[in-house]
Amino acid sequence: MPTWLLPENIADVLPSEARKIEELRRLMLDTFRTYGYELVMPPLLEYVDSLLAGAGQDTDTRTFRLIDSMSGRLLGLRADMTTQVARIDAHLLNRDSVTRLCYAGSVLHTRPSGLHATREPLQIGAEIYGHAGLEADAEIQELALASLALAGFERPRLDLAHVGVLRALLDDDPAAKRDEQLLYGLLRSKDLPGLEEATADYAAATRDALLALPSLYGDVEVLAWARELLPAIPGITRALAELAALAASAQGRAQVAIDLADLRGYQYESGAMFALYVPGLPNAVARGGRYDHVGEAFGRARPATGFSLDLRELARLLPSAGRKHAIRAPWGNAPELRAQIAGLRKAGEVVIQSMPGHDNVQDEFECDRVLVLEQGNWILKNLG
Amino acid sequence: MPTWLLPENIADVLPSEARKIEELRRLMLDTFRTYGYELVMPPLLEYVDSLLAGAGQDTDTRTFRLIDSMSGRLLGLRADMTTQVARIDAHLLNRDSVTRLCYAGSVLHTRPSGLHATREPLQIGAEIYGHAGLEADAEIQELALASLALAGFERPRLDLAHVGVLRALLDDDPAAKRDEQLLYGLLRSKDLPGLEEATADYAAATRDALLALPSLYGDVEVLAWARELLPAIPGITRALAELAALAASAQGRAQVAIDLADLRGYQYESGAMFALYVPGLPNAVARGGRYDHVGEAFGRARPATGFSLDLRELARLLPSAGRKHAIRAPWGNAPELRAQIAGLRKAGEVVIQSMPGHDNVQDEFECDRVLVLEQGNWILKNLG
Repeated sequence: MPTWLLPENIADVLPSEARKIEELRRLMLDTFRTYGYELVMPPLLEYVDSLLAGAGQDTDTRTFRLIDSMSGRLLGLRADMTTQVARIDAHLLNRDSVTRLCYAGSVLHTRPSGLHATREPLQIGAEIYGHAGLEADAEIQELALASLALAGFERPRLDLAHVGVLRALLDDDPAAKRDEQLLYGLLRSKDLPGLEEATADYAAATRDALLALPSLYGDVEVLAWARELLPAIPGITRALAELAALAASAQGRAQVAIDLADLRGYQYESGAMFALYVPGLPNAVARGGRYDHVGEAFGRARPATGFSLDLRELARLLPSAGRKHAIRAPWGNAPELRAQIAGLRKAGEVVIQSMPGHDNVQDEFECDRVLVLEQGNWILKNLG
Repeated sequence: MPTWLLPENIADVLPSEARKIEELRRLMLDTFRTYGYELVMPPLLEYVDSLLAGAGQDTDTRTFRLIDSMSGRLLGLRADMTTQVARIDAHLLNRDSVTRLCYAGSVLHTRPSGLHATREPLQIGAEIYGHAGLEADAEIQELALASLALAGFERPRLDLAHVGVLRALLDDDPAAKRDEQLLYGLLRSKDLPGLEEATADYAAATRDALLALPSLYGDVEVLAWARELLPAIPGITRALAELAALAASAQGRAQVAIDLADLRGYQYESGAMFALYVPGLPNAVARGGRYDHVGEAFGRARPATGFSLDLRELARLLPSAGRKHAIRAPWGNAPELRAQIAGLRKAGEVVIQSMPGHDNVQDEFECDRVLVLEQGNWILKNLG
């Protein structure tokens, strides 16, 4: 087998693509910073027990495992950074106040999420800890929208969901609560005949609500239908009010959709959730939501909400930046030449010195000027 | 065992340290770019056979191994990126012209290189392919010095060595060539009695030269002694001339030392090598050199020279940047407030909105101004 062959769904990133990723990475981290988010860098490797603690269980089958020869213990390669950042908030920073953290780094998956998906996404994201109110959800949603705007996606589709609806329904009816796992499965697969059978003996209000959920999908008017079709118990009323507020705060910056049938985060999320969609990508390009219990596994359950996206996937949707103009210069040790080149580089110009006997050929740079010696002075001349 | 415990020599990078690393990373990549280096991003995981091909063998015992459930084959986590970038040059880009590539990414080691060393260095580096002349070595050396200057190290110690000296000596004397591995071991351990015994039957010129090598260490005058003590065969003459040229090109920008006893890269390097030292770190902070055979394992041996350093280690030597000034703003949906905050952020200010009921406490940011509503206008007021 040739040595240059890479594993399936693993790839090098070549210059023009790498440049797009690097530029987006910087723009996003800089934007997070103007909101007061502090950068952290968790490790690529941890004990598997830490990586899979609490909400991390979700990544169990996607996590590569290997043995640590120093400790003899089982290590995992991170498949997601959310749990790691929660560990940093809970244990290392250990602040009482609101903490805003952001991160950017590679994660690895044993299997790709789709036929052409990479097994090495470049995850970038932001998290707020310590505030249970909707303000934190709104800030995270704003930051996710701002991130996509940096990539040129001005009015993405924003799908809003809320785990509080189903949770309140079940908590309100012991019969339904006993069937939680069953109902969750039926709702996720939108199995209406199965739901009808399972809910046959429930109280009518619970039954009607559960049967209504899979159809509560569409634009913001869905919230009005939901208020009619679902019981007015406090948990549901609050969830619907939160969704209305989040929909309002995204107005003009996204095409808002409500999806009460979306239960993707039901096991670990604890409040409002969102997914962002852009043209060219069938799956969500970014996901976020509230998961207040994420720090529990590390000894400190703090309110938490955040979002993340895969920079590699996002960058692939963007047109190539085109070749950057550069200056060709000869090789030489003459102090005047060196000083001239150093000055141009300091001013941000790309100056490529020709190695004797070779021309410069690059993907990324196009030499449109050349540095030449005329009458004792080094001057720039246009090419072509 | 607590879930927040990390493996030995693995650590989180917290905000103030992460900021230093991120800033250095950007400065260095931007500098590489002004020299025409194109960014590539090789994967964290490859088949072990690819990672350890050719010069990659050097990282064999430091490479974590794991099984790929998709292919059933053995994967390795990269312990060094040099071989990966050579693979990209040799196979993917496959250009005839000079190619300049740079990279920045985490690598993982099964064992730390020292008691307190990290097992997850953040390797950043640059490579030139396709030019065998000394101009390429000089450009790489200049770039390494420029990188350290960006971190504030203006005149580091530059140790120059050259594998061509020993190689020419051995190629010139079949008796010595037969003992290559033995001699290499004795020279690396500076075992003079062993060397005397091993070289007892050699021609006098070879013997004297081999016994002189361990002492050929010091400032640039070492080159003059070497010309006297070593035979004037072409390989040695050329190597010493190259070292003299590289020493001259670093003049004023480094304290140059010559170390003909340094054989660290003998097995894979093929020409001039350098190591850079700064106060506060006993080991070299950056290393570089020529290794023309690196692409051979990927079907295309091109001249190659490059350097790399560990950004985490380098950043640790630098003072903390101090807290950045920020603006505190109240939470609110008023359009005037939102517009004011957006404008300040766009201008590069950090604006941290207070979540109701909480103060802002950050490591990185210190709010020295606050946005307040006075007579219907949002204005900035100094704090404290």
